[in-house]
Amino acid sequence: MPTESMSHQLTLTVIPAVPLIRPGDDLASILCQSLLAAELPLVPGDVLAVASKIVSKAEGRLVRLADVRPTRRAREVAEACQKDPRLVQLILDESQEVSRLRPGLLITRHRLGFVCANAGIDSSNVGPAAAGEEQVLLLPVDPDGSAARLRAELGRQMGVELAVVIVDSHGRPHRMGTVGAAIGAAGLPALQDWRGRVDLFGRPLQHTVVGLADLIAGAATLLFGQAGEGTPAVVLRGIPYERREGNAAELVRQRELDMYR
Amino acid sequence: MPTESMSHQLTLTVIPAVPLIRPGDDLASILCQSLLAAELPLVPGDVLAVASKIVSKAEGRLVRLADVRPTRRAREVAEACQKDPRLVQLILDESQEVSRLRPGLLITRHRLGFVCANAGIDSSNVGPAAAGEEQVLLLPVDPDGSAARLRAELGRQMGVELAVVIVDSHGRPHRMGTVGAAIGAAGLPALQDWRGRVDLFGRPLQHTVVGLADLIAGAATLLFGQAGEGTPAVVLRGIPYERREGNAAELVRQRELDMYR
Repeated sequence: MPTESMSHQLTLTVIPAVPLIRPGDDLASILCQSLLAAELPLVPGDVLAVASKIVSKAEGRLVRLADVRPTRRAREVAEACQKDPRLVQLILDESQEVSRLRPGLLITRHRLGFVCANAGIDSSNVGPAAAGEEQVLLLPVDPDGSAARLRAELGRQMGVELAVVIVDSHGRPHRMGTVGAAIGAAGLPALQDWRGRVDLFGRPLQHTVVGLADLIAGAATLLFGQAGEGTPAVVLRGIPYERREGNAAELVRQRELDMYR
Repeated sequence: MPTESMSHQLTLTVIPAVPLIRPGDDLASILCQSLLAAELPLVPGDVLAVASKIVSKAEGRLVRLADVRPTRRAREVAEACQKDPRLVQLILDESQEVSRLRPGLLITRHRLGFVCANAGIDSSNVGPAAAGEEQVLLLPVDPDGSAARLRAELGRQMGVELAVVIVDSHGRPHRMGTVGAAIGAAGLPALQDWRGRVDLFGRPLQHTVVGLADLIAGAATLLFGQAGEGTPAVVLRGIPYERREGNAAELVRQRELDMYR
């Protein structure tokens, strides 16, 4: 398996002055403009990490809660988790099945396959709303497709081959605190299989299938996590990865293999 | 809550030429020597991430399987997970309880509180062994204590205040691939609570308790994950964090709060 040689330094750079993104915006062109304005050229192999929120916004995934009519099932689930029945309706619409349901908590298997709270629906940083106009933001319809398009378009405009990771925040079943999770990826193996390699003593490596795109998502979250939409895009340079197609669906643990479903 | 201002660039640098670590080695002095030899001065606020493996080795946590006498319980569990009964004995000795047990798989709640496979016991990169001399490596006895000592000693020798994270590889219940996990930390909040902050529109931030030390562990894993012991230490510069004591125990989801136990 051809892989890039080991790197000894990584740099992560915030793309500065990314404007607020609105439905219909051309995200690739906007990011290009910010990169050019900041005199930050890309080099081949760079990885662009973007917050899923701006991808969703560009794709018009805002929903007004006032427009949602909860079903009886949604109202029942909403009572069990003590959340807005309209929000619960959207969560269920975006999900395959409920995983855990408690007061204050609704964890589902998202239609995209991964398990997360509230189907990734976000109600912060989605913009001011008049009374009765509360809006929430759904995840992109097809984050792997969004990553592939962003990769192709940015690559064309900047004249380099790069990889793209779309990042959301997930909690963890066994650990406290949220971390970055790759929900979309293109141009790299989201799951990097180092099997076949041997250790310093010639023995096969353990822990050799690495959640590469999740590591990248987490690293980017160090720079854009806390400020929400303020710094939604980061360029990572120096990451060793195999140049190939790839997608975040590789990171989904299939239901049959999920011992904690 | 006082916090460092937002950073716009992070750099991660491998500490080059770290020698193979042996039981009894003074890890702080060895890392200092490698930093000085490479002319890599530390600056205040730097975070040192080290692979748990070299901490364990320095602390002499190698065990010869030939010295382990499995109990009846260990033999039963070993049969269920199809692992070496001596290894299973060590895993059970290092654990509070079994979480999941299947052929090929033994996940437990470690005595330190976190949930992981094989109690973090590693049998790769632990050095050549004669026939019948197979060795495995347990996690450090007290990784938070190890991190605090490394921080104090390195800080003294290098003349700067820094933070330390001790990194292991963990699988995830719902996602494929391993990622870095902080099993020890000192000098930073392992769990960074951004609650009280507001978003760009003045609304309280969601997802505001961030697994900071795990994000750092994951970022470092991008550089030292695949080569095992070859590059076991990374300096991260530019991470925004609150300067305070801290420990990786903050990241442990207590049994009562674990809905997937």
